[in-house]
Amino acid sequence: MSDDVDVPESHPRYASLVTRHRIEAGVEKGITSRQGLIAQGRGEAYDYLLGETTIDSADAAERAAAAHLLGADDPVVSVNGNAAALVPGELVDLAAATGAALEVNLFNRTEARIERIAAHLRDHGAAAVKGLTADGRIPGLDHERAKVDADGIGDADVVLVPLEDGDRAEALGEMGKTELVVDLNPMSRSAEVAAVPIVDNVVRALPNITAHARELREPDTDLDTVVAEFDPDDARAAAEQQIRRAELDD
Amino acid sequence: MSDDVDVPESHPRYASLVTRHRIEAGVEKGITSRQGLIAQGRGEAYDYLLGETTIDSADAAERAAAAHLLGADDPVVSVNGNAAALVPGELVDLAAATGAALEVNLFNRTEARIERIAAHLRDHGAAAVKGLTADGRIPGLDHERAKVDADGIGDADVVLVPLEDGDRAEALGEMGKTELVVDLNPMSRSAEVAAVPIVDNVVRALPNITAHARELREPDTDLDTVVAEFDPDDARAAAEQQIRRAELDD
Repeated sequence: MSDDVDVPESHPRYASLVTRHRIEAGVEKGITSRQGLIAQGRGEAYDYLLGETTIDSADAAERAAAAHLLGADDPVVSVNGNAAALVPGELVDLAAATGAALEVNLFNRTEARIERIAAHLRDHGAAAVKGLTADGRIPGLDHERAKVDADGIGDADVVLVPLEDGDRAEALGEMGKTELVVDLNPMSRSAEVAAVPIVDNVVRALPNITAHARELREPDTDLDTVVAEFDPDDARAAAEQQIRRAELDD
Repeated sequence: MSDDVDVPESHPRYASLVTRHRIEAGVEKGITSRQGLIAQGRGEAYDYLLGETTIDSADAAERAAAAHLLGADDPVVSVNGNAAALVPGELVDLAAATGAALEVNLFNRTEARIERIAAHLRDHGAAAVKGLTADGRIPGLDHERAKVDADGIGDADVVLVPLEDGDRAEALGEMGKTELVVDLNPMSRSAEVAAVPIVDNVVRALPNITAHARELREPDTDLDTVVAEFDPDDARAAAEQQIRRAELDD
């Protein structure tokens, strides 16, 4: 990440500053929205409280997410403006490692922004990016936010959604899809409805899901066991406990 | 606040949505920066964990802040882009109630943005707004961030700084000024160096400081006792305890 920004890697806030720089560059490129900047700030606060680290329960969630994606018939990785700005190459790597499709799906949908995000992902190696056909609908959401690709999220059995809004996360769940949600707030509705709530920074989570997927692709791996051994309520409780740890240790 | 945005007051997230709308309107008016949007998101997360309420220790801090401002020789309320967008009228009311000057002081300083913020404050009733003379300097900060008005923050004995950055909060403290800092993160450096750390949303804090000031202006009020009875470490600890409360009560 050292090409991105003029901050020494030794700086104690290096990762946080690089992340913030990428989000701001995303605004300049027209791929991150104002709401995305505010969401980034919320994430920063939760990540600070979490210790800016992948806690054990998040690593377990990332492993379970990898197993879900590998075992799916039609897995899709949903991409919003923040994820595209922060981890474009990591999204492409994850899709390649798991056979998932990439679909751009925005809270504040505009065709122009979807096209810019798709182009940004292609610049980072994506062969195909869905999201512009928009011939499917998620029941229960208003017009613009309901739009998905019929052969993408519309048909998917497993969807990874980084930083999803609560309404859409609930609606996708009601469609019977298995949702894997990356959200630094373990108390959010998205985290609550997810089969796999991943309480981690998307910058750390994505490469770790990919690493688990590469390992789980080995022959004789029992994906069902990995999936079955993960408990979403335990993972959310562990993350909340970490965020609200009773000992004031700094 | 009901004129601001088309959200019913009964909505459970009403205050939070109005606040967010004001910040976004601030971006459109050119008074809130991108960094300000990210800071807004961080504040939202801490406020959510705090319970989106003025806790007792914050009310005590707001009362102590009012006493400090009333007892000062040259009190100044520092205004940044977020404060101007969120609470322009409340800043003017506080200045009037305490005899404090208003001075625009930005992390990313541009003359144009200072002028827009000063105009915004005048639109909300401010008689005079400092910040454009910039003939004083805060020692230890780099050129642009060091600029203050010599007869404003430069000469002030007490400064209220909403949402200040840590470096400048430390530098102001080293100048011997009494700092009253509004910051939703009780673990921030700004909160740590403040004589009065106010761990509260600026939207709730400002009107409450003004209300305390009006009460403390009564004759025979012993401002020194109000100031002496406030303990900044206790207030920060109480706020952190609330944010990280051990019982998972939702």
